[in-house]
Amino acid sequence: MPSSISSASNPRIREIKALRMRKTREQSGLCYVEGIRVVGEAIQAGAVVETLVVAPRRLTSEFALGLVADAVERKVPMLEVTTDVFRSLSDRDGPQGLAAVVRQRWSEIDEITPAPGERWLALDAIGDPGNLGTILRTCDASGAAGVILLGPSTDPYDPAAVRAGMGAVFSTVIARTTFSHLRAWASRRGAALVGSSASGAVDYREAQYGDPCVLLLGNEREGLSSEERDACDVLVRIPMLGRSSSLNVGVAAGLLLYEVLRHREDPAQA
Amino acid sequence: MPSSISSASNPRIREIKALRMRKTREQSGLCYVEGIRVVGEAIQAGAVVETLVVAPRRLTSEFALGLVADAVERKVPMLEVTTDVFRSLSDRDGPQGLAAVVRQRWSEIDEITPAPGERWLALDAIGDPGNLGTILRTCDASGAAGVILLGPSTDPYDPAAVRAGMGAVFSTVIARTTFSHLRAWASRRGAALVGSSASGAVDYREAQYGDPCVLLLGNEREGLSSEERDACDVLVRIPMLGRSSSLNVGVAAGLLLYEVLRHREDPAQA
Repeated sequence: MPSSISSASNPRIREIKALRMRKTREQSGLCYVEGIRVVGEAIQAGAVVETLVVAPRRLTSEFALGLVADAVERKVPMLEVTTDVFRSLSDRDGPQGLAAVVRQRWSEIDEITPAPGERWLALDAIGDPGNLGTILRTCDASGAAGVILLGPSTDPYDPAAVRAGMGAVFSTVIARTTFSHLRAWASRRGAALVGSSASGAVDYREAQYGDPCVLLLGNEREGLSSEERDACDVLVRIPMLGRSSSLNVGVAAGLLLYEVLRHREDPAQA
Repeated sequence: MPSSISSASNPRIREIKALRMRKTREQSGLCYVEGIRVVGEAIQAGAVVETLVVAPRRLTSEFALGLVADAVERKVPMLEVTTDVFRSLSDRDGPQGLAAVVRQRWSEIDEITPAPGERWLALDAIGDPGNLGTILRTCDASGAAGVILLGPSTDPYDPAAVRAGMGAVFSTVIARTTFSHLRAWASRRGAALVGSSASGAVDYREAQYGDPCVLLLGNEREGLSSEERDACDVLVRIPMLGRSSSLNVGVAAGLLLYEVLRHREDPAQA
């Protein structure tokens, strides 16, 4: 292993720092992820790790040392840095000494054919990376087939999204397209489009979701547009009993994803 | 109305800025909330507004001007500041020109007696203010009776919590205590304690929640302690079908709160 990089202005370190910017992530197709758990998740999900970044002095956990040993065996390029340099790359307190430059993976919507039983989730212009990460984590947990990002969405490879999702971004099928393309795609593929809206006609617990189905949620501020609502096969509503007029989009996605799961497991309940 | 404060080092402005710190909020029993929607929510929920902070040049929305006019009528103290001073108080881009110093409201657990049909939510050492705010919003939406914070919890009056909760903090009953006190309280009051855990014996969709009930969720990293799990009358589990071992705590709270609501509305489904 080469000697540790000790200068935060080392060109390689500057390249990695530039991955904080979305533009650099998009151009390179890479992202920078940090923390033992998330790096482990990326590796276990089969993501392509371009470089493992290690601050040996910080790295004591057995699990982390195992990950590093495996990576060495598989000839993953390794970048050893001093604790100070590692911290300069980090956006957390008490960094754990393990990070990675990982290749992004995007699926092409036109190469996806929803199978019977599958639930997909489409998000229009979701703005907050923490919300998106949370939703990816819920998609994984509820057995959803994948996520389709519409319009000017936040980046699922934003460090805050990766962190909130606990690395679920690496095991989730993610595509991006426009709403009109999604609409045509769902129609051609025979997938039902189920929107969520305060003005939905059906209580989400009593809806017929169609199979396969694509759940559609609007962005944090505006919800679905009238064009989107009109295009849905079903428009469901989550009961709101208090003063709030809406739920956090991550909570709404969780309720809908688990509701469709319930209907799939026990169609009689629908 | 007095002339605008134009200096960010004005003593009154410094006092308000100090409310960013939890310690100052605790000592004063106040908080600083910003944005037309949240300030409106505080007022409509009957919170005590100590001072309304207004940057007239930023303030154009009719709703906001109505709030200010009402406040003037009710003789709420008003602090007029320049746009620059307002921005110095703000933690957002494009501040809307309306903010308020609001009195915190805490309920005493021993003065609460859960009524039949009520759902309470207890959170142990919740760490992230955004999660807590999201949960307060969901409590409101799902008709929960209130939230009980246990242990070293984050502050529901943290600006990030107030923002994520869209001001639900002002309409939600919030108490704080220790777990052992909660346990004794629930037992004396005949409320069932229902914990959520990956090792729960019962699928959350099939559980008997008891009535009234107190849902108990652990913190983001650790979940419930073994002492807490042992103390629960029921321990429910949310099915996890993917690689993740847990959901975001706000999503888990949402699933449970809406599940109990479903059971209350249609006991046959339980």
